[in-house]
Amino acid sequence: MATDIPDLMSTTDVPEWGDAADVIVVGFGVAGACAAIAAAETGADVLLVERATASGGTTALCAGQIYLGGGTPVQEATGIIDDVAEMIRYIEAVTPEPDSEKIRLYCEGSVAHFSWLESLGVPFERSFYAGKAVYQPGTEGLMWTGNELTWPFREQAKPAPRGHKVAAPGETGGAELMRILTKHIESLPIRVQYETTVRNLVADEDGHVAGVHVRRLSDGPAFLRAGSVVLAAGGFVVNTEMIAAYTPRLASGFMPLGTPGDDGLGIRLGQSAGGVPIHMEGAFMTAAFYPPPQMLNGIIVNEAGHRFVAEDSYHGRTAGAVLAQPNARAYLILDAETTAWPEIPLAPFIDGWESIDEMELALGIPPGNLATTLDDYNASAAKGDDPDFHKHPDWLKPLDAGPWAAFDLSLGKASYVGFTLGGLRTSPDGEVLTAGGPVPGLYAAGACASNIAQDCSGYASGTCVGEGSFFGRRAGRHAAASVRVG
Amino acid sequence: MATDIPDLMSTTDVPEWGDAADVIVVGFGVAGACAAIAAAETGADVLLVERATASGGTTALCAGQIYLGGGTPVQEATGIIDDVAEMIRYIEAVTPEPDSEKIRLYCEGSVAHFSWLESLGVPFERSFYAGKAVYQPGTEGLMWTGNELTWPFREQAKPAPRGHKVAAPGETGGAELMRILTKHIESLPIRVQYETTVRNLVADEDGHVAGVHVRRLSDGPAFLRAGSVVLAAGGFVVNTEMIAAYTPRLASGFMPLGTPGDDGLGIRLGQSAGGVPIHMEGAFMTAAFYPPPQMLNGIIVNEAGHRFVAEDSYHGRTAGAVLAQPNARAYLILDAETTAWPEIPLAPFIDGWESIDEMELALGIPPGNLATTLDDYNASAAKGDDPDFHKHPDWLKPLDAGPWAAFDLSLGKASYVGFTLGGLRTSPDGEVLTAGGPVPGLYAAGACASNIAQDCSGYASGTCVGEGSFFGRRAGRHAAASVRVG
Repeated sequence: MATDIPDLMSTTDVPEWGDAADVIVVGFGVAGACAAIAAAETGADVLLVERATASGGTTALCAGQIYLGGGTPVQEATGIIDDVAEMIRYIEAVTPEPDSEKIRLYCEGSVAHFSWLESLGVPFERSFYAGKAVYQPGTEGLMWTGNELTWPFREQAKPAPRGHKVAAPGETGGAELMRILTKHIESLPIRVQYETTVRNLVADEDGHVAGVHVRRLSDGPAFLRAGSVVLAAGGFVVNTEMIAAYTPRLASGFMPLGTPGDDGLGIRLGQSAGGVPIHMEGAFMTAAFYPPPQMLNGIIVNEAGHRFVAEDSYHGRTAGAVLAQPNARAYLILDAETTAWPEIPLAPFIDGWESIDEMELALGIPPGNLATTLDDYNASAAKGDDPDFHKHPDWLKPLDAGPWAAFDLSLGKASYVGFTLGGLRTSPDGEVLTAGGPVPGLYAAGACASNIAQDCSGYASGTCVGEGSFFGRRAGRHAAASVRVG
Repeated sequence: MATDIPDLMSTTDVPEWGDAADVIVVGFGVAGACAAIAAAETGADVLLVERATASGGTTALCAGQIYLGGGTPVQEATGIIDDVAEMIRYIEAVTPEPDSEKIRLYCEGSVAHFSWLESLGVPFERSFYAGKAVYQPGTEGLMWTGNELTWPFREQAKPAPRGHKVAAPGETGGAELMRILTKHIESLPIRVQYETTVRNLVADEDGHVAGVHVRRLSDGPAFLRAGSVVLAAGGFVVNTEMIAAYTPRLASGFMPLGTPGDDGLGIRLGQSAGGVPIHMEGAFMTAAFYPPPQMLNGIIVNEAGHRFVAEDSYHGRTAGAVLAQPNARAYLILDAETTAWPEIPLAPFIDGWESIDEMELALGIPPGNLATTLDDYNASAAKGDDPDFHKHPDWLKPLDAGPWAAFDLSLGKASYVGFTLGGLRTSPDGEVLTAGGPVPGLYAAGACASNIAQDCSGYASGTCVGEGSFFGRRAGRHAAASVRVG
């Protein structure tokens, strides 16, 4: 494992070109698949290289949610009113440093992108799952997967659910999505080479990326000539040195959501050609404490006994807020009427207590602090109000029916999963950007690029697969169009 | 992807040996890690080669449960009485074709193996989680993870919980286990080479495995000489051709619990030297419908409206029974007093009905069948009895308080995960066995070998990491001891 940036090789170093293609796509997760398909749709000759023995990437490990909106067929069929302008406003509002051009393209292109995915055979059920959960439990096509209903966002943009999921049960949607895209690619004149790792990018004397130096398991090193190259090689969640350098929060205490391919190679290859990694400190970590939805009636306090987040936020936003507390410690507090049952999947039940005093003592909260927090919360909740954090009235219920229970949301206690969000700076067409402009012939998409998602607080489930497929597709199309004659 | 068996190369084909080691271990999941450590403990010079860029394998994706018993320190500290003979009886009873010698060694060696893991720095909390769940929600050291309390096993062996989990939150135990073992290996004089794929085994004129032909990303092909070779290279859940040939049930409709390295290469390398894959039809698939535990009060019926499994079985056993029903279809039925809330994580809520008639109609069950099933069940349950399936009295409650709810456990509806269980036939010391005896110098462990686990119905969580670490360790020790002088 390393943070080494591979050397950029020169075409003059190439002893002999092996295979050649108009567009070489590196990586066969959702971004690479969409880039390859889009390039092939223009008539380009496409070669897709993948390090692993099979397609899928990290996409195959996720639930297969795709964040889309602005009036998709699933939204329309289920009576959800959405609007491109509201979707833009929402994403702008939740994003620390929004790239307005990309957000506009993503939202304006969302309905067409949905239809394109369907045209490839990706199924979406015309159904809405109204519950509060991490993903649709069945094959439902749509649910809320972000902070649209969370204050202040619900006041900044008209909320709409945008979490579309591939019609496959529960968390199997990502695996199904990749099975379908792989089958589709096998039906196209796209060549796929597995067990092929890119070692270096190769550029000509003008700095135009002209190919890749690979090692193939079947026959060793080779130089593959390309009109352009699309990097779609994943994030860096398994690269311990990059994690230490960029996102030390991901060093331990969580389960990496990734494959062994998520070692940052795509980002480092981009850097070799002058590409610039951005938002690299951005990481997604979460340990959802719902479902069951009634857990949202609880309050979350830090070790000082103070609230710090609207408890009805998207689970990733809540987790981000927990991790920002002293010692990354926080507790979910419920009373006898709000607790569902003493085991929830990802956050351990600590204990139940007959009095707040006992609970403060047991949790190590300074005496009186939690009592004050509860008194304030209960008084407001009784009026359907939460002046401090604006939790939605649906989840405001005085917690005054002892005994009280606490669940541990702390890092090292709750079951966190995580992945990285930072990646190469790219143009809206996926061109890898240096300080001075695009690297000719070089594109990036998916988890090795930075497009929409930037941090845990603003993340919505489905953004990674959404932006990976959307900007992967744009990158593939543009890469094919930019191939120089001759 | 292929079912190809690589060629077995001869030492006379080796132009030049590169690196050499007493023991070469192939694969850096839990089995390979334990094999390497055990070999190094004997003073052997060990080289550990791993295809991916990082350690972890599929172990890093699991919750880190380890099935151990017979009176471990965690069992003793938490007041659990267990006994080696009872553990043997239980595993013998749940296993279709038990390998009695391996089971005896595993059970007799279980306490010492636990202590060995602790000596490496793997932490286990002295605590018991009494709830019914898929894994301990917190860092608790022990819980029930098999069918020990399920009929007929509870009558065949005195039940004890044996699911030990690495002291890490929820499902992060496997990642934590591999972090600890990796750190330990880095402290030992074990050489690790990542991005190194074994292409062929190499044997001398006597058929003794004498090395491996690898491709390394850093410098291409090489021949590595070894006194013996331990294959610990994972299962085959991502190899679509092997899945089609051996376990077609895993072809679709589930999320593979595996990495891109689970392509069966370890098994196929073993076959090249005459090794024999066994129990290859064995696969684990599950979609747990608990927690919450009260869901176990329900009954599970097939599309004919008949029960077919004790609903309090371990979730994998239940899932295996569901998948064996016509069209792999089944429903969990509860009444108003037993339903927890209308969303459980892995099986979708279908609907609620005021009458059984309506429910039969909606589920497509022949009229009257479900009513009869419920009447029979309710009558017996009222007496604390279940003559048909011997569900434990703790979960017997008449389901007579309408409205009734149904959850869909069918394949294609519930959220299944799966992995393969078959692998190379090995001796208790991990020697790869042909029809005629061991292949000298060749060992296998972990998911590419067949040791304890054989099918879904008998599986207990923690068996794969348990047997992988236990027989991996034995294989490493024996491989080191068998290294020929000179």
